[in-house]
Amino acid sequence: MNRRILLNCDMGESFGAWTMGDDLLAMPLIDQANLACGFHAADPLTMQRTVALAMQYGVTIGAHPSYPDLPGFGRRHMACTPAEVTALVLYQLGALDAFCRAAGTRVAYVKPHGALYHDLLRDDALFVAMLEACVTYRQGLPLMVLALADNRRELELADQVDVPLMFEAFADRAYLADGQLAPRRLQGAVHQDPQRILEQGLAIARGEAFADIDGKPLRLTADSLCVHGDNAESLAVLRRLRAALDAT
Amino acid sequence: MNRRILLNCDMGESFGAWTMGDDLLAMPLIDQANLACGFHAADPLTMQRTVALAMQYGVTIGAHPSYPDLPGFGRRHMACTPAEVTALVLYQLGALDAFCRAAGTRVAYVKPHGALYHDLLRDDALFVAMLEACVTYRQGLPLMVLALADNRRELELADQVDVPLMFEAFADRAYLADGQLAPRRLQGAVHQDPQRILEQGLAIARGEAFADIDGKPLRLTADSLCVHGDNAESLAVLRRLRAALDAT
Amino acid sequence: MNRRILLNCDMGESFGAWTMGDDLLAMPLIDQANLACGFHAADPLTMQRTVALAMQYGVTIGAHPSYPDLPGFGRRHMACTPAEVTALVLYQLGALDAFCRAAGTRVAYVKPHGALYHDLLRDDALFVAMLEACVTYRQGLPLMVLALADNRRELELADQVDVPLMFEAFADRAYLADGQLAPRRLQGAVHQDPQRILEQGLAIARGEAFADIDGKPLRLTADSLCVHGDNAESLAVLRRLRAALDAT
Amino acid sequence: MNRRILLNCDMGESFGAWTMGDDLLAMPLIDQANLACGFHAADPLTMQRTVALAMQYGVTIGAHPSYPDLPGFGRRHMACTPAEVTALVLYQLGALDAFCRAAGTRVAYVKPHGALYHDLLRDDALFVAMLEACVTYRQGLPLMVLALADNRRELELADQVDVPLMFEAFADRAYLADGQLAPRRLQGAVHQDPQRILEQGLAIARGEAFADIDGKPLRLTADSLCVHGDNAESLAVLRRLRAALDAT
Repeated sequence: MNRRILLNCDMGESFGAWTMGDDLLAMPLIDQANLACGFHAADPLTMQRTVALAMQYGVTIGAHPSYPDLPGFGRRHMACTPAEVTALVLYQLGALDAFCRAAGTRVAYVKPHGALYHDLLRDDALFVAMLEACVTYRQGLPLMVLALADNRRELELADQVDVPLMFEAFADRAYLADGQLAPRRLQGAVHQDPQRILEQGLAIARGEAFADIDGKPLRLTADSLCVHGDNAESLAVLRRLRAALDAT
Repeated sequence: MNRRILLNCDMGESFGAWTMGDDLLAMPLIDQANLACGFHAADPLTMQRTVALAMQYGVTIGAHPSYPDLPGFGRRHMACTPAEVTALVLYQLGALDAFCRAAGTRVAYVKPHGALYHDLLRDDALFVAMLEACVTYRQGLPLMVLALADNRRELELADQVDVPLMFEAFADRAYLADGQLAPRRLQGAVHQDPQRILEQGLAIARGEAFADIDGKPLRLTADSLCVHGDNAESLAVLRRLRAALDAT
Repeated sequence: MNRRILLNCDMGESFGAWTMGDDLLAMPLIDQANLACGFHAADPLTMQRTVALAMQYGVTIGAHPSYPDLPGFGRRHMACTPAEVTALVLYQLGALDAFCRAAGTRVAYVKPHGALYHDLLRDDALFVAMLEACVTYRQGLPLMVLALADNRRELELADQVDVPLMFEAFADRAYLADGQLAPRRLQGAVHQDPQRILEQGLAIARGEAFADIDGKPLRLTADSLCVHGDNAESLAVLRRLRAALDAT
Repeated sequence: MNRRILLNCDMGESFGAWTMGDDLLAMPLIDQANLACGFHAADPLTMQRTVALAMQYGVTIGAHPSYPDLPGFGRRHMACTPAEVTALVLYQLGALDAFCRAAGTRVAYVKPHGALYHDLLRDDALFVAMLEACVTYRQGLPLMVLALADNRRELELADQVDVPLMFEAFADRAYLADGQLAPRRLQGAVHQDPQRILEQGLAIARGEAFADIDGKPLRLTADSLCVHGDNAESLAVLRRLRAALDAT
């Protein structure tokens, strides 16, 4: 392994009087924080505080833009046009970057959230719209997407507008043969066994093959592992993963 | 008159399927466009289009942030804390600036909207919170406020954090003796006669006294006149004012 | 023609400071007003005023519920579950009915708006969810849907839960052979010629065949014609249609 | 004590993906559930589920309407006009009642939430606007307000439009001499000692005097005690209070 894999986590997902996740406990354990930008979660004060918390632990800040759907937490597909997607991503990106600027840093990458994240992988026009938001906001701003068995399509589209891609993988999700996440409705789509999560995470980190949902070997090339910090179990796994990666 | 007075206008106040104002007709006539940022009006696409329109006519772009109140158009006082005001202004400022950056320009000043605009003048803590948003977003970013007979309070607070102030006056509003706008509920609070509006505007532009609501002379020092472009009458007055200023 | 066809129109679509349509001019010309309920348009005061206006002209009031999408005016498909659809329709239905009750009347029918209207016709589970909202809100409350060449599917589903259906047709839209509206992207999808609109409207009113988009005869059985009152042209057509129907 | 005092609790304050309170544990312990209506908390599905939960335990359902301020949880004063207050209360009341009707019950009373609750007690025009919403929605629908040392003003205004009032008191809040709640910023404004909360609650239930914030005796006449179920401590106190009241 010639490059250290990073740990990224969705953060700043509280909203007004409602709390979500335990950012105080998770932040010290991760490398990259994907911060909600007000469209699926977060309000201005939450964004400001989460930026401060990330900086306190030297965690890199990414924007986590979403379809405009607070009651649905950005998880519901919405038929937005590519032009709408570019505009709503720019809006959220700038809003988050304002808190970064005020704190003396910058948004370092963009990782789309929820339904928008998944729609990009199915629709070239939306993927290009997202790239457009990244590159027009700041030359060189990377986009984080799902590591697949074959990411040539994404790389080709991104190269055309000179947007660097970052690839993330999941330690706790079962995979289909092509590297797509197994849909949650499938039996075994989400790993519950901490040992299994740890092993899949370390295999990905080392660039080694691991078993897909059918038991066949799958190899993914990833820059970052997406981890969770919303409850005691996920924090326990995150701590073990952090320790194991630090020990390699 | 050693410095040319500018004309500023609230723009980009459409929202989704709803249109407001006639930005296409007003934009060529003004110097500074105060652009709504999504909290009282505008959506991401509207912001993107209005930035493009302003650039087409070489109009300077200002952010026009508001309390979060779309159904009330930002006109209703809301008891936001100073910390909330700083955060919600930073959010809106960054969101608008994203479209400016993507188009190759920058937000050039901040002019608060509606109830927030008026609350600042009554509450030092809110005024300081607004200054904090400006200066932490970008050193030197000016704040536009109401030109009063005596703006020493505002200048003192702004100097402490090194925020430049811009002062605006109104050609079509009657004034109280201290330079506050006469409340709209008062008889004669809004001038209807185009000739009177023109004369008050030119008097302010020349730094000359004009009659306040009681007929007493009032002198205001202003950098910009706030004009309107929402209907045929206001556009007609705006055209005459533009022509008169260009002729001086 | 043994039953008089009615005219229905989407009304109360203003929102806060933004005005849409000319309800004052259109209301006297129609029989049924489909009132926005705050999810795609309208705010509480607008709903209250539009209910009063409808009552002034003896116009029957229907609820016009939508997906929760103000910036998209309810026109964007959203992947809501059937349970979400039942709940969001009940919410809007009750909200509008509160103004009706306060004014001494009742919501008389439900006509879904925009993307929700169209999604129902493609998805049995959503159609059943909508029926569930109607029947649990009030036994006998009718649902208005699109008149097709063959509405047996809708009638069967509605009969199972004992919801009366009302069918509406369009005088100004071209039709596919099966009675679906020709998609707006097709050439000729929306009739511009007032005479053609009038003739198609009268043919539908009389239960006579008219030309579909390919010129083939199409016959629709409709209880109501959906008309528009948003500008001078649509109001002129509406006046002619009203007069022609009154003369029959 | 010739009438049993009731226990009321704010319920259904989750929103989309965010959970608040532990309605499942608190519902069996209370008599009246004040249900959020979507303006400060709750979404349609949450409202539907909370209505079902209340009915399961035979708990009476009240509407808990608020200013339109989700990010501020309805706790921020907003300068709404009386006409706006009537309309926004009617809207929320009807929306909640739709779920009640669908479940075979009715909204039994109205208790305003947060800033709106407090503004009513300071502003006759707003109080009258709230009464107007209650009485026009349904003749005889009661309004729940704060029990003061002297509620003659509220009773007089309510009598004029024939709205029954219900008075609530707090076991865990310190009181000023006039029966207003001691502002939270004051030392000792919220009782922490469970024994003290229990004793104040029982005193109010028996119509006996208890010590106000200055130690002076205060007597309140209340129909209901407002209790909380948001965490383990408040649930423990609630259980003790329920048991003590049931034992009397």
